[in-house]
Amino acid sequence: MNRMIKLTIAYDGTDYCGWQKQNEQRTIEGELIKACENLIDGFFSIKGSSRTDAGVHALGQVASLETSSGIELRKISTGLNHYLPKDIVVQKAEEINPDFHPRFDAIDKTYVYQIYNARVPLPQYQRFSYYFYKPLDIEKMKEAAQFFLGEHDFFAFSSAGGSVKTSIRTITRCDIAQDGNLIKMTVTGKSFLYNMVRIMMGTLIQVGLGKMQPEAIKDILASKNRLKAGPNAPANGLTLIEIKY
Amino acid sequence: MNRMIKLTIAYDGTDYCGWQKQNEQRTIEGELIKACENLIDGFFSIKGSSRTDAGVHALGQVASLETSSGIELRKISTGLNHYLPKDIVVQKAEEINPDFHPRFDAIDKTYVYQIYNARVPLPQYQRFSYYFYKPLDIEKMKEAAQFFLGEHDFFAFSSAGGSVKTSIRTITRCDIAQDGNLIKMTVTGKSFLYNMVRIMMGTLIQVGLGKMQPEAIKDILASKNRLKAGPNAPANGLTLIEIKY
Repeated sequence: MNRMIKLTIAYDGTDYCGWQKQNEQRTIEGELIKACENLIDGFFSIKGSSRTDAGVHALGQVASLETSSGIELRKISTGLNHYLPKDIVVQKAEEINPDFHPRFDAIDKTYVYQIYNARVPLPQYQRFSYYFYKPLDIEKMKEAAQFFLGEHDFFAFSSAGGSVKTSIRTITRCDIAQDGNLIKMTVTGKSFLYNMVRIMMGTLIQVGLGKMQPEAIKDILASKNRLKAGPNAPANGLTLIEIKY
Repeated sequence: MNRMIKLTIAYDGTDYCGWQKQNEQRTIEGELIKACENLIDGFFSIKGSSRTDAGVHALGQVASLETSSGIELRKISTGLNHYLPKDIVVQKAEEINPDFHPRFDAIDKTYVYQIYNARVPLPQYQRFSYYFYKPLDIEKMKEAAQFFLGEHDFFAFSSAGGSVKTSIRTITRCDIAQDGNLIKMTVTGKSFLYNMVRIMMGTLIQVGLGKMQPEAIKDILASKNRLKAGPNAPANGLTLIEIKY
């Protein structure tokens, strides 16, 4: 029987083509596999919970590491961090039951989308937030965000390219908060469609600009028409914060 | 009579050899001069307020731009930001009296030194904080920080290489605050000796580790002996926050 290790991983996704391993492209999973090859003798396999897109960041991505190796638990995180580049860091490694599945066993996932909203950008926020210079009406955005709560067909808020049976999803949290020039959307749900969080944000920006009323969110959900929603907000503003099991 | 413009500048100092122009080295002042050469026809000169070291960041560095050009004020910040690299951004340009001197006219300067204190590093804090993994006793550090307040001879807290007449300086604020795994020292004074803030931080870390008692700060100040103080904490944790006039 192989061991199963639950890895919690943080990364700055700026310089990566997303999570999923690709030939010829630098990806988070690709780097993790390379680090495992260096550290572990014998069989291992890696399964990620969330296939974050190119440029998206994580504080709490989760992956399972299945291995036949008897390597000490504490040497797994130390060892992987030794071989990983500086912008990917294993935060925690935990022994877990062998049938653990990082995607199917997740109760919910929380993402934060961050906008730096000011007349000029600030270099300190460049990597982890989307710079947007036009003034935004935060109160209207807060109002609009509430219409995402609950179970809806999110087809209008997804990009083509996902391979899912249904576009019905349940959102249990969707808050907008302001901290100086930073605007943060925190959104929690069991799972998300392709680009869903970024299109939700892109649509809330339209509301913040006054180009849409908050209630329009209801109509867009009902329309199931991608063209009614706002644009896909840039990847660099998005961070996968936490996955609950 | 030339015009005088007060520039407030933010930068991510990671990829620069500090503020001051040097041949063959990428510096903040060097980039600013290049941007001015591109934007401004005729005479200009740049004077910075604080010569931040290699790797040190700024939210509110101030420089004066003296120029004979009649270029519109709002075109100065927009134009300079067009020519500057993304990690240096002019936040504000203001018309100011021609005898303004960014260094001599400063009332005080505020720096923040940030430590990310956890068992493993977090890529999101890599650029703007010093990663330190050993546990620190924050209460002891807070106590020690109070001994810096007031007028003292800070000779023991400075590196050789500065060219100043006196090492007596006055500190009006020196706080330690904790926010999760981040430890922040905020320090305000009219002016600082070479490496002074970083050596103050390096010494407070010794206190946090229990290698020194908080009261030792008094003795180190009195000793005027650099060898009694702690090491120079790394540049990447330091940010020049604000200069008051």
